[in-house]
Amino acid sequence: MVLGELVDRNARKYPDKTAVIFGPHRFSFAQFRERVNRLANALLGSGLTKEDRLAILAKNCHQYMEIFFAAAKAGLVVVPLNHRLLGGEIAHIVNHAQAKLFLFQSNYTGLIRSITPELRLVKEYVSLGPEVEGYQDYESLLASYSGDDPGVEVTEEDMICIMYTSGTTGSPKGAVMTQSNWLAHTVNMIIELKISSHDRTLHVIPFFHIASTWPMLTHFYMGATNVILESFEPNAVLETFERGRITTCNLVPSMIIQLLESDELPRHDYSGLKWLGYGASPMPLEVLRKAISAFGPKLLQVYGLTEANPLLTLLPVEEHVLEGEEKLVRRLTSCGRQLINVDVRVVDDSGALVKPGQVGEIIARGDSIIREYWRMPEETRRTIKDGWLYSGDLATVDEDGYIYIVDRKKDIIISGGENISSREVEEAIYCHPAVLEAAVMAVPDDHLVEAVKAVVVLKKGQQASEEEIIALCRQKLAGYKRPRSVDFVDSLPKGASGKILKRELRERYWKDQPRRV
Amino acid sequence: MVLGELVDRNARKYPDKTAVIFGPHRFSFAQFRERVNRLANALLGSGLTKEDRLAILAKNCHQYMEIFFAAAKAGLVVVPLNHRLLGGEIAHIVNHAQAKLFLFQSNYTGLIRSITPELRLVKEYVSLGPEVEGYQDYESLLASYSGDDPGVEVTEEDMICIMYTSGTTGSPKGAVMTQSNWLAHTVNMIIELKISSHDRTLHVIPFFHIASTWPMLTHFYMGATNVILESFEPNAVLETFERGRITTCNLVPSMIIQLLESDELPRHDYSGLKWLGYGASPMPLEVLRKAISAFGPKLLQVYGLTEANPLLTLLPVEEHVLEGEEKLVRRLTSCGRQLINVDVRVVDDSGALVKPGQVGEIIARGDSIIREYWRMPEETRRTIKDGWLYSGDLATVDEDGYIYIVDRKKDIIISGGENISSREVEEAIYCHPAVLEAAVMAVPDDHLVEAVKAVVVLKKGQQASEEEIIALCRQKLAGYKRPRSVDFVDSLPKGASGKILKRELRERYWKDQPRRV
Repeated sequence: MVLGELVDRNARKYPDKTAVIFGPHRFSFAQFRERVNRLANALLGSGLTKEDRLAILAKNCHQYMEIFFAAAKAGLVVVPLNHRLLGGEIAHIVNHAQAKLFLFQSNYTGLIRSITPELRLVKEYVSLGPEVEGYQDYESLLASYSGDDPGVEVTEEDMICIMYTSGTTGSPKGAVMTQSNWLAHTVNMIIELKISSHDRTLHVIPFFHIASTWPMLTHFYMGATNVILESFEPNAVLETFERGRITTCNLVPSMIIQLLESDELPRHDYSGLKWLGYGASPMPLEVLRKAISAFGPKLLQVYGLTEANPLLTLLPVEEHVLEGEEKLVRRLTSCGRQLINVDVRVVDDSGALVKPGQVGEIIARGDSIIREYWRMPEETRRTIKDGWLYSGDLATVDEDGYIYIVDRKKDIIISGGENISSREVEEAIYCHPAVLEAAVMAVPDDHLVEAVKAVVVLKKGQQASEEEIIALCRQKLAGYKRPRSVDFVDSLPKGASGKILKRELRERYWKDQPRRV
Repeated sequence: MVLGELVDRNARKYPDKTAVIFGPHRFSFAQFRERVNRLANALLGSGLTKEDRLAILAKNCHQYMEIFFAAAKAGLVVVPLNHRLLGGEIAHIVNHAQAKLFLFQSNYTGLIRSITPELRLVKEYVSLGPEVEGYQDYESLLASYSGDDPGVEVTEEDMICIMYTSGTTGSPKGAVMTQSNWLAHTVNMIIELKISSHDRTLHVIPFFHIASTWPMLTHFYMGATNVILESFEPNAVLETFERGRITTCNLVPSMIIQLLESDELPRHDYSGLKWLGYGASPMPLEVLRKAISAFGPKLLQVYGLTEANPLLTLLPVEEHVLEGEEKLVRRLTSCGRQLINVDVRVVDDSGALVKPGQVGEIIARGDSIIREYWRMPEETRRTIKDGWLYSGDLATVDEDGYIYIVDRKKDIIISGGENISSREVEEAIYCHPAVLEAAVMAVPDDHLVEAVKAVVVLKKGQQASEEEIIALCRQKLAGYKRPRSVDFVDSLPKGASGKILKRELRERYWKDQPRRV
């Protein structure tokens, strides 16, 4: 069984059922198969061969799913790009992945033109539409190729995508995902969440993010319907929950917070929802309470990371206990227990299991978990040891196996569901001539859960404003990575070797919080 | 992932939760692991090595599950025996499977003694208790071995059991099942039936039958509880549904019929039940109606065969529509649609898909399906062609993929959930000196769904009574295989070549029925 076969099997079992809805576009499973086959043939026709990479720069659209499955059928490898990145950041990833073909939505044509000179390996550019002069057009391409199966032999061990994630060193790392990684994860989540062919899931997290890939695959596997919104607009989401007869939706906490703040919240009927997932960062208890009162007892929490492809633990709906036995209520501050078929442990520095209450690092093993970073053997060795993925997340575990994340070993900020490398932001700030030292970290934030904070020491006699520092970061980095605030201090706390003690610094901002992430 | 790992993972995740209940015996997942490891070490200690076969003759008991998982951990192969078979029939299977070790319940000691001289390859006999002089005792054996993991390397491609099933030639055939066959089927059914760790399943079908193996594995996989009754007693089943807080139970139609006839039926509360499965043969609409009125809308139908290991199609609970749209009600006479991850087709003699309404043979392909019969290459070639299993069941398929079984190509009778070879019964009848010709077939029966009927032509001037013929069969065959009635006729319908036209003969008994099985 490989991912491409899902397309054929659904077309056989549910030919007329709706596979995908995106705005006015609606494709049955038979139509979806036809389009996927045409695209797979077109990609092969353009000269790509087994394991070649293709980059995608697009907001959510039905083509994203078609491209994923066409690559799966043709034995090609998808490199999804965060559309909030700047040109230089995108060029770095596309070059690192050695992509030969670049699919993009027309609104990114200016960006594409600006980086084309840097992209020496890219041989073909395809616009997803509307048509742009000088570029191949997606729909015309589909029209000129056959809808028959491309007939490529694909095995479970073939790569299907490389997802880039922020590294502690500042350079994004490409997590290499095989068909077998995704099949294992997909089956695990179908079992855990009891996804059925009757479900209709809504996508509002961007498709370049793994938090959207996994629900897409689990629902497609079952022959359920994937409903896509281009981006997250609270009112559109609330309306689609009802009008789109949505049963399941995966979100990040900051999105749930926005939904709860919408005036439209009481105007819709959410009785059709079966579950609303949240992950990427924990959810304040007060928000959970509000969410359960607005949507019903349907919240579930997942925890994972891109390298785990992605989920490791689950706190299911029935364990979202807001009052009653203290032991049960306390579990709401955990990220749940290990998923079926994933072995998740919390270990000390010697690799031994920690005792209940002791802090250790979360490590994990299983068929879903990636085996390597793309062209980064040193990073791979540091992260995957003896088949165990070292998450960098620090946690305790209780007698019943519930895992409580307390801190992050890696210097990563997770803000509004996006991973941000502190180091990368610091490097941008250091470009300011007046900056002597800078430390970037997460601070608690009601909306983003974590917000980027910069703490800066200026050179003697020199000056810089908060606005200047933030503007500099916006110029060098994707907007979501910019500090939301800058504090100027006389000096930073340092260890004996002169290393900035970021943990001590962070403590000033987190001291009233139960945990440090 | 292999089956033995399920034992370790459940012991880690649910150490104190109840894994198995059998009468007064209750084992947590931690205790179950300990017992399985001890047994695996004992089996290896007795000299068995990878792929060696061990036979089991027992009614349902917790040891059956321990033996299955101990074999899985030790890389050994279980051969479950139908305890209704006679000594000669059992000896034939044990010798054909070349079993080296024989586990048996003490009440079968007489039978074991009577066939021991024939079982030349069996080196060890182990009594499951109570202790029998002259035989190794199961509990003493466990007590004398370590509870540590046996440390045998087992792969997905290793065999785990050989299940013997009635063949059309009269000789039982051993379906060889690998770890990967069972893992694939287990995941398929967990997905389809949404089995969770909270379920409690009841076993009343004998464990030697694959219809009990699959629910055992699906529930164990999820860390659910397996509740075992030694045999099917309607009142005990009804009581256990309530008192044992049973959520799921797989049955055969004749068992459901008996439950509905019990005086105790109205005395219990069945609200905890999530589903009652039935399979092996279709269920009369009137019985379905009664069952749904007694237990609620919880009935689901499965169809499969031992060689498919075992299930191919499912008619789920929500498709048991008793009234309303005619198209939906008609589906109740189908066996549902193909299971996820199994490719089930109905084809004509040239291998082409039949059109809706046309009769063809059901064929199937998938990871769950067996690849071979044990030591019967010719039977394997006849049954598995180009990776497709030929079921011998004749069916039509409608526009929506629902499969309607109409007849059986193979000369097999399925009575009370047991497969019976017509040929084998005919051979027994031919041993009567007065019999000239005999034809054995299934006729409709209210309780057994199909009952064995013999139609006999006596030699001129000779005599035999119905009772004599039935008594002769009881002497030569397991009791359930005996004809329930014998009709004496002057001649049998024959084709030009002199072959008995059994289909024509059967028509006399089935003419008022909507189908022929």
